[in-house]
Amino acid sequence: MEAGFSFRPIGRVETPFATTKDCPRNGRALDPAPVCRVHVAPEFAAGLLSVEAFSHLILLYALDRAGPPEMVFTPPFDSAPRGVFATRTPRRPNPVGLSVVALDGRDPDAPDGGGVLRVRYLDCVDGTPLLDIKPYMPRTDSVPDATMGWLARP
Amino acid sequence: MEAGFSFRPIGRVETPFATTKDCPRNGRALDPAPVCRVHVAPEFAAGLLSVEAFSHLILLYALDRAGPPEMVFTPPFDSAPRGVFATRTPRRPNPVGLSVVALDGRDPDAPDGGGVLRVRYLDCVDGTPLLDIKPYMPRTDSVPDATMGWLARP
Repeated sequence: MEAGFSFRPIGRVETPFATTKDCPRNGRALDPAPVCRVHVAPEFAAGLLSVEAFSHLILLYALDRAGPPEMVFTPPFDSAPRGVFATRTPRRPNPVGLSVVALDGRDPDAPDGGGVLRVRYLDCVDGTPLLDIKPYMPRTDSVPDATMGWLARP
Repeated sequence: MEAGFSFRPIGRVETPFATTKDCPRNGRALDPAPVCRVHVAPEFAAGLLSVEAFSHLILLYALDRAGPPEMVFTPPFDSAPRGVFATRTPRRPNPVGLSVVALDGRDPDAPDGGGVLRVRYLDCVDGTPLLDIKPYMPRTDSVPDATMGWLARP
């Protein structure tokens, strides 16, 4: 349709998952969840001021190893075709991934001045480009009783 | 740092907020919350299949009217400077907005084949370019007891 928007990485995420095949189904599928690291580039590290006040963060990242988008497909463990916007597949028109992570703390800055956060519940590939960090606010972000259709089936 | 990523609008959101000054502080600040509409362009409308199974969705959109990013600033109603990643300000390095919205239903498709969803709890300006729609999954997205530092002060 119209002109696009250009976004640049503000850093990288470090996870134990070397390839997309190694990634868990979601960030809470492994118990205990491995500690991952969020590396924020030096020019953006000042933006981390006060972030440690939050127990949880929302990370947005570029799913740079996703295949081409599929508008409709049958997900694994499902019996019917679903639209891409009814799934969390990486193969989206705009491949932006989102994870709600627990913030375990902040490491000392890297020698180049970059910031480093320790988080849990990431499910993406090691080296994934980071696009944004947002504080998780339960008043607007948490809906414990949200329903999710066929995925809620036992 | 390195090369960026280009994202294209998949549609637009329709809200009662004509300018950024008209936007509420967050999508749940108005009671009752006004019904907004999500217009998905015809080439992406097939991706809405089964989306009505979900009570809530996560919308990502391009904050195309935000000012330039500020790494550190003192938010309104706050007494200390905060890093951009500890706030939800639109003035971010990558101005992507995120709202958790309630899905009220789907309207008949537009004459051009575009899809239309009715949602509540959007807080962005009318006409904001839509980047993604994700189903809200309480198991991974809901953290009711998340803490949020100084913002939780009474």
